Amino acid sequence: MSAKPTSRDIRTANRYEVLRQIIARSPTSRQELAAATGLSLATVATLVGELLDLGMLTEVGFEDSAGGRPRGLVAVNASGGTLIGVDIAETYVRVELFDLALDLLARACEEMGPGEKHPEQVVAQVTAAVGSVVSQAGAAGARVLGVGVSVPGQVDRDRGVCAYAANWDWHDVPLLDLLAEHIDHPLYLDNPLRACTVAELWFGAARGRGDAVVVNLGTGVGAGLALGGGLHRGVSNSAGEWGHTTLVLDGRLCHCGNHGCVETYVGALGIMLNLRELSPRSPLLHPEDQTATIDALARGVAAQDPVAFEVLRETARYLGAGISDLVNLLNPEVVVLSSWVATALGEPLLREVRAAVGRRALRRPFAATDIVLSPITTDPVCLGAATFALEGALRSPRRGHTQPPEPAAMARSSTAPPS
Amino acid sequence: MSAKPTSRDIRTANRYEVLRQIIARSPTSRQELAAATGLSLATVATLVGELLDLGMLTEVGFEDSAGGRPRGLVAVNASGGTLIGVDIAETYVRVELFDLALDLLARACEEMGPGEKHPEQVVAQVTAAVGSVVSQAGAAGARVLGVGVSVPGQVDRDRGVCAYAANWDWHDVPLLDLLAEHIDHPLYLDNPLRACTVAELWFGAARGRGDAVVVNLGTGVGAGLALGGGLHRGVSNSAGEWGHTTLVLDGRLCHCGNHGCVETYVGALGIMLNLRELSPRSPLLHPEDQTATIDALARGVAAQDPVAFEVLRETARYLGAGISDLVNLLNPEVVVLSSWVATALGEPLLREVRAAVGRRALRRPFAATDIVLSPITTDPVCLGAATFALEGALRSPRRGHTQPPEPAAMARSSTAPPS
Repeated sequence: MSAKPTSRDIRTANRYEVLRQIIARSPTSRQELAAATGLSLATVATLVGELLDLGMLTEVGFEDSAGGRPRGLVAVNASGGTLIGVDIAETYVRVELFDLALDLLARACEEMGPGEKHPEQVVAQVTAAVGSVVSQAGAAGARVLGVGVSVPGQVDRDRGVCAYAANWDWHDVPLLDLLAEHIDHPLYLDNPLRACTVAELWFGAARGRGDAVVVNLGTGVGAGLALGGGLHRGVSNSAGEWGHTTLVLDGRLCHCGNHGCVETYVGALGIMLNLRELSPRSPLLHPEDQTATIDALARGVAAQDPVAFEVLRETARYLGAGISDLVNLLNPEVVVLSSWVATALGEPLLREVRAAVGRRALRRPFAATDIVLSPITTDPVCLGAATFALEGALRSPRRGHTQPPEPAAMARSSTAPPS
Repeated sequence: MSAKPTSRDIRTANRYEVLRQIIARSPTSRQELAAATGLSLATVATLVGELLDLGMLTEVGFEDSAGGRPRGLVAVNASGGTLIGVDIAETYVRVELFDLALDLLARACEEMGPGEKHPEQVVAQVTAAVGSVVSQAGAAGARVLGVGVSVPGQVDRDRGVCAYAANWDWHDVPLLDLLAEHIDHPLYLDNPLRACTVAELWFGAARGRGDAVVVNLGTGVGAGLALGGGLHRGVSNSAGEWGHTTLVLDGRLCHCGNHGCVETYVGALGIMLNLRELSPRSPLLHPEDQTATIDALARGVAAQDPVAFEVLRETARYLGAGISDLVNLLNPEVVVLSSWVATALGEPLLREVRAAVGRRALRRPFAATDIVLSPITTDPVCLGAATFALEGALRSPRRGHTQPPEPAAMARSSTAPPS
């Protein structure tokens, strides 16, 4: 298998980039799009024409150009279809329905108890939540272009299979085939790391940047790589496992079987261990509750609690070393801190991390890199999963749902979508 | 600055890929090239036409296709021009002249004493050696398409400036402007890591692979990234500084000012330290001579010397951890071990490294990755530097040297090339 781009990939990437810029700038002209994307005006005009034919854009009038002919303006056709994003997590299933500008129209969430880990149970929860958002959305719910599904773990996206999910001990679960028995829309599967990265690429801090790294700080830890304007997946769709790179050879034991992985120092459990090593009886520590501990640390930092601040600094020292590795190796334009631990610890963590990377990274790549918090304020996993469906619709476009579904390599659907 | 590919970049990348496949398969048909590159037959025909017009290819007859029309065959026009690669190292300047198939036609080497570190001295050595290969090559020497120059350190290739070279304490040396006073050909500057990576991409183990990592093991250590079929440079052309990623937090002091960098464990000096820690008075150790020590270790391993073997294993343990990080983060198709330490320690090192990565990397990306020794038997830095000149000629083609030079962003030349 080769990850070398074909001319079809390049056309698809250009289509992504043009729509991304239109979403960012709506309304906008073809001339402005050519300047923003670096594509020729002729190429932009062709791509805009395709998107107009697909009903994804509308013409919205003209703007004067200095002395020249008035320029036609296009905007996203928000009512051209809807997209659904599904975030399957350990303790909940969250489903959101968006219009084509990726504005949120409806949301549903199903709690999952600790016993509910069988694939059939998860499929039932997802099916119920998808049904809920579709009916909430009314008429818009009848125009679903696709459903993107994020599941934690290693994903074979071409086959729609969850190859391995540690939390539930799933091995080679054909999740998309199971979902396609209940959901009559094209389905797309991937994992939360790639969902967050795609969300940053389309709507967040990586948009318009050449090379970006999205550092996901949650229970698990990863680094989504958006290189050359697109997601770097690697040869078997498992790139980004930065959480399982070595920070301390022969260091802390990791659940992957290795020692000294980045995740054991900067994941939520790693941060709890940083706290325990510093102050074993700290009232900040909620031994069985990661979220409560991270929230207590955030409040402690805000209240200038010295233990909380010391844990923040120590965590930032580890994180700074790990991010310096990414900066030195990849020389990105921007490093984005994302996911719930980054959100909870926010600006104080960012400040300490910037200082730690500044002390450690090589001068030249450090000077070229911004380090920022994710600007996305909604659930980035749902947003990114819905974007998988948008990308799928752009890869294998069907006009206005009147044609039968084409066999698309990445999409599964048990029946034709409603016409 | 953005590393996002423009349509011009994409055309250039396609031109590279087609010529790369022609060099690998000469003679070959347009149909075979379309199959090998994933490009459409129409695109391949256009690109082949351009390369024919440039005199880089020749038509060499026809092959029968089963039942169809005979297919035209093309091959590299070895006499269509020559390329020069310059490898500036600490103790020597090596210059090689190649034909368009990158077969070696002439070579020159100038030793440099420890005192010779002024830019003017280096420029004089390079000028003399380039003059030597041109006159050795006779008539072919009059058709030089460009000169690629590799200099160790951080390079601003767009400005042709050596931003920082630790060995000589160079800061912002305008090397290409200095060379252009003496050399009347388009000049291209970059560093040895990227030269070796481009050599693997065009002629070595990365050719035809989607994502490859070229691990350079010498005095310095780096990881050249060939992603999506092209060199990943990063936003300021400094990607690949894997030698300065952390393997052991708070570990050995590195000359970059940090502690625990990969280079301090697996670079030539790091390996000497591995030996010294294990056996301080070992006769294998030549305290002032890296090359002699590495050679002694290689002979020791071949002779089943237990100390040599233990040093090899310990080095492979460090290297295995560092390469596992690359495998987990980037999920490449192939990891290539290159440069003189990898050549000297050869198959025994490869065997131990494969085992160490197998123990440490995640199962899924490890299963998708080959780890190999570089198959390039000549100086990969000269070959890669000459390839920079080839790529430059393909970016800003000039037909047969009869037109005046165009102002090319990446090329410098003081005067028009000989017509």
